[in-house]
Amino acid sequence: MLNLLAFRKTNIHINMYRTQYRTKTCGELRLSDSGQTVTLAGWVQKIRKLGGMTFIDLRDRYGITQLVVDANAGQSLIDTANSLGREFVIQAIGEVSERQSKNPKMGTGDIEIRLDSINILNKSVTPPFTIEDETDGGDDIRAKFRYLDLRRNPLKNALMLRHKIAIEVRNYLDAQGFMEIETPYLIKSTPEGARDFVVPSRMNPGEFYALPQSPQQYKQILMVAGYDRYFQIVRCFRDEDLRADRQPEFTQIDCEMSFVEQEDVLVTFEGMMRSLFKNVLGVTIPDPLPRMTWFDAMDNYGSDKPDVRFDMKIHDISDSVKGHGFSLFDNSAYIGGICVPGISSYSRKQIDGLTEWVKRPQVGAKGLIYIKAEEDGSFKSSVDKFFSAGDLEKIAGRFGARKGDMILVLCGSDKRKVQVQLGTLRIEMGNRLGLRDPKVFAPLWIVDFPLFEWNEEENRWNAMHHPFTAPKPEQLDLYFSDKNEDIAKVCANAYDFVLNGTELGGGSIRIHDSKIQERMFSILGFTKEEAMYKFGFLINAFQYGAPPHGGLAFGFDRVCALFGGSDSIRDYIAFPKNNQGKDVMADAPSVIDDSQLDELHLVISKKQ
Amino acid sequence: MLNLLAFRKTNIHINMYRTQYRTKTCGELRLSDSGQTVTLAGWVQKIRKLGGMTFIDLRDRYGITQLVVDANAGQSLIDTANSLGREFVIQAIGEVSERQSKNPKMGTGDIEIRLDSINILNKSVTPPFTIEDETDGGDDIRAKFRYLDLRRNPLKNALMLRHKIAIEVRNYLDAQGFMEIETPYLIKSTPEGARDFVVPSRMNPGEFYALPQSPQQYKQILMVAGYDRYFQIVRCFRDEDLRADRQPEFTQIDCEMSFVEQEDVLVTFEGMMRSLFKNVLGVTIPDPLPRMTWFDAMDNYGSDKPDVRFDMKIHDISDSVKGHGFSLFDNSAYIGGICVPGISSYSRKQIDGLTEWVKRPQVGAKGLIYIKAEEDGSFKSSVDKFFSAGDLEKIAGRFGARKGDMILVLCGSDKRKVQVQLGTLRIEMGNRLGLRDPKVFAPLWIVDFPLFEWNEEENRWNAMHHPFTAPKPEQLDLYFSDKNEDIAKVCANAYDFVLNGTELGGGSIRIHDSKIQERMFSILGFTKEEAMYKFGFLINAFQYGAPPHGGLAFGFDRVCALFGGSDSIRDYIAFPKNNQGKDVMADAPSVIDDSQLDELHLVISKKQ
Repeated sequence: MLNLLAFRKTNIHINMYRTQYRTKTCGELRLSDSGQTVTLAGWVQKIRKLGGMTFIDLRDRYGITQLVVDANAGQSLIDTANSLGREFVIQAIGEVSERQSKNPKMGTGDIEIRLDSINILNKSVTPPFTIEDETDGGDDIRAKFRYLDLRRNPLKNALMLRHKIAIEVRNYLDAQGFMEIETPYLIKSTPEGARDFVVPSRMNPGEFYALPQSPQQYKQILMVAGYDRYFQIVRCFRDEDLRADRQPEFTQIDCEMSFVEQEDVLVTFEGMMRSLFKNVLGVTIPDPLPRMTWFDAMDNYGSDKPDVRFDMKIHDISDSVKGHGFSLFDNSAYIGGICVPGISSYSRKQIDGLTEWVKRPQVGAKGLIYIKAEEDGSFKSSVDKFFSAGDLEKIAGRFGARKGDMILVLCGSDKRKVQVQLGTLRIEMGNRLGLRDPKVFAPLWIVDFPLFEWNEEENRWNAMHHPFTAPKPEQLDLYFSDKNEDIAKVCANAYDFVLNGTELGGGSIRIHDSKIQERMFSILGFTKEEAMYKFGFLINAFQYGAPPHGGLAFGFDRVCALFGGSDSIRDYIAFPKNNQGKDVMADAPSVIDDSQLDELHLVISKKQ
Repeated sequence: MLNLLAFRKTNIHINMYRTQYRTKTCGELRLSDSGQTVTLAGWVQKIRKLGGMTFIDLRDRYGITQLVVDANAGQSLIDTANSLGREFVIQAIGEVSERQSKNPKMGTGDIEIRLDSINILNKSVTPPFTIEDETDGGDDIRAKFRYLDLRRNPLKNALMLRHKIAIEVRNYLDAQGFMEIETPYLIKSTPEGARDFVVPSRMNPGEFYALPQSPQQYKQILMVAGYDRYFQIVRCFRDEDLRADRQPEFTQIDCEMSFVEQEDVLVTFEGMMRSLFKNVLGVTIPDPLPRMTWFDAMDNYGSDKPDVRFDMKIHDISDSVKGHGFSLFDNSAYIGGICVPGISSYSRKQIDGLTEWVKRPQVGAKGLIYIKAEEDGSFKSSVDKFFSAGDLEKIAGRFGARKGDMILVLCGSDKRKVQVQLGTLRIEMGNRLGLRDPKVFAPLWIVDFPLFEWNEEENRWNAMHHPFTAPKPEQLDLYFSDKNEDIAKVCANAYDFVLNGTELGGGSIRIHDSKIQERMFSILGFTKEEAMYKFGFLINAFQYGAPPHGGLAFGFDRVCALFGGSDSIRDYIAFPKNNQGKDVMADAPSVIDDSQLDELHLVISKKQ
């Protein structure tokens, strides 16, 4: 029936990396391969000459293999070897031979290839920085030449880890009956929460799509549609002013389930994380995972994402330090501290430095009070005028302070604010004392978040999570109360997965009852019309049999970074943007043709 | 160290779909489960009353289970059952019992649940169409209520198939050493090829990102970066006027390899497709797959994506029908036809209809000549005046025509145009004769595409694939020739994967040599400046050691549709856009706030 063209039935594909250009990779040859003639292809990492011989380190994704051109090789081969430069792409043919001076640090360190020929596949101009684990290139030059930076092991390993985690996530969730369903990237703009990136529609002049900040509404729609276990590894977009650890586009592991309560969601996804830790890192995490209420996290760690790799908990000493004539304490609503082990030897200068540190706007404390538990058993503090040695000993006892420790105390009128300041100080002290080993993993769930937070500027309630988060069923009386003090008490079946001081994911049980949803909008101050304009299709969909449902999303970039032992997501994204939202390698964004603007019915405004 | 909250060590999670709301799904109960008390949750598909009993079909993603409320059940249960409506969400508890009248068409058809209680989880207003395999809802209403349409089996099965194919693709490629690497969605606009969707940058006033039409340049950058086996299942965007089978956003399986020739790419990816056919459909496709040159495909099938499920090849009869005094033939450069089996009984009216059909602008033929091989052995044609019975028999012989067949002939001045018309007619006749069974799969590779096509309007060469496609190495003389007739002959190591008349994927070996790339730009008429502006970062990257590389991309939506036996991708996308690029469910695109426009430094143009 068909013209069946002659097909080269090669036996070239014996091993899977074998191609027309190579028979082996640069990572696989061992002593047992000695005597084989092999063809390798890759990049010239390094060239050395030694006693008439030329040694070439050839690199590909799989490793480095040493090539040797003998002093008595043909002149043309020697000339070719001498013409090579760093990052040239070559094909090299030769015999696998045992090495004289072995390199036990490399898998291929027992062998070298005694070359018969070199074929230069492509030349390279001299790269602007070295392709080594520790490079001499600064951030800016490496960003511009990202394709060279990506040749370095740390970035390659980061992307390999990312790939591996993605495969594990998908196979785990697939085995649990989850379906990956792709939701649209061109969606409706809802001016709620963070700022949308928008996309002008040429076919619908004056109208815009938005890029999704998350597929939140679509995944809830999928629950209404009966897909009771959904997930997606999906790009999300937020047009925010960028901070170090933020990207305008980022990736989420987005998940939703129907016919579930919080317990089902937590058990399912700590199962996923347990499997990831085991299969990717070989690390066993507790079963079950610890859980901490939002209130305990704030009270004890001054953070809703506590790093529990180290203790150094916050203690509330408000009740025991007032009435000593120290007006700063007497006038504070909250006084709390942390006990930092082994730093009682801090000098005056060091303490002054720490005081300056907490007074920076990023922390915002008014000042710092210390109590030293000296090695000789005495106590010394910055408030000796107001507190006797006995007083100080008593306070130190509250912290369980030992000789050599120093207690750091902050105070103020707003309990949560002071706690957050103490939490920030606690993390700083953890860093200084080396208590935050990236190879130690201490995951936990934070649960029982407040449903609302008071927006003081606008004098109204904000949803702490989002307007579809359900109140705890046992608190419906408070939820329907018209007293603000009642509403403030309502908690959500919302949960965050926290690892080493970073929120890796979070979610909630959603509202599926239209009366509860209407009440939510009314508490948030949306009129019916506003609610319909913003969330109309979801509200409509909920009329047609919405099941009880809930879910969560993990920040995939952060999961990868933390699994890799890094706190910067940028190395775990192949082509990140810089802090101005620019891809400096590709030079994006850029101006576009006027004809493109015309087609989109847009004019660039002159006023700026 | 932590406040370890009390953890409900439930044994609820014995089976994986078990949650707080259900112990079993609606698809799993069998006769062997009789006597068990179970809790199900799902949607009310149907309610029937029969002799005082109420039968409820309860549906979830996994199937349908029949629930029964006995005539002698408690009044409150009977009342609740009577209050149910279609698509109500309920939780039902009862005992698995053998059914009186079994339904062998359903997995659960041997049993029913004799109910003890019903808990209405949510009500539903009456859906605007029936949730059945064959629904009474039209396209528009189903698009608006996509969440209800998605409850129907055909769409659910389509999305389940899509999920399964994605998992298979990823696991196959992962096992072959491919890394999935996410490339950016906010990239640089290059006004080449189709129209970009653009995204205004708030942080960089007057500048725009583009959404990728494909990650082409990034995947080539990854090859330069040493990632020799890349893939990504990735969304792509094209702002084109939409046709039936086009979507503004669509999904590709995007792949690239280094140190390869065409042979490596074809072997690797027909391996992937073979595995998909086997594991997803249980279908064995030939090993190796047939290959056909672009020239043979055009000459024999009038298409670069031939449907080879049926023969009906095109025959060139230019040489044998001229000189008979029929000026239409005598003045044509090309005369060709197809032999359609068993339609010699076509009436005058049917033939006239076919003639009108080929004269429609979508086909564009001037007219249709037929030769009937009648059942009695005689021949009859629309050109009897010019051709004797012997002449006709001779022509019919060229086609191998049998009694009862009819030969359809088209002619014209442009060989390829006439061939394409014949190819279109061939597909139409294949459809009419039922030769295009969607359950039959005939994949093949089309190879040896011309590198360039002449753009008559602009009087210049266009790249047939894209400007990074390499000429065949053995044709470099022609490629560097300055004669257009030589350049016209240059073929590419480019290839398409074609299935049942649809191009499912395609790709090429890329240029990695800067001289060949410069020549490409010069043939395409780009100045150095234009080339640098459009493709600068890739051209720069190629200076630093670009390996030989090539790849391809499959249209994932189409793969899914064809595997599902459909030729419409829309059912295989959870939330497609309509032909105006609108998501009518979510009402996107839409107008945005003036404040959003101000922040983006944009004004909507009044002139339209």
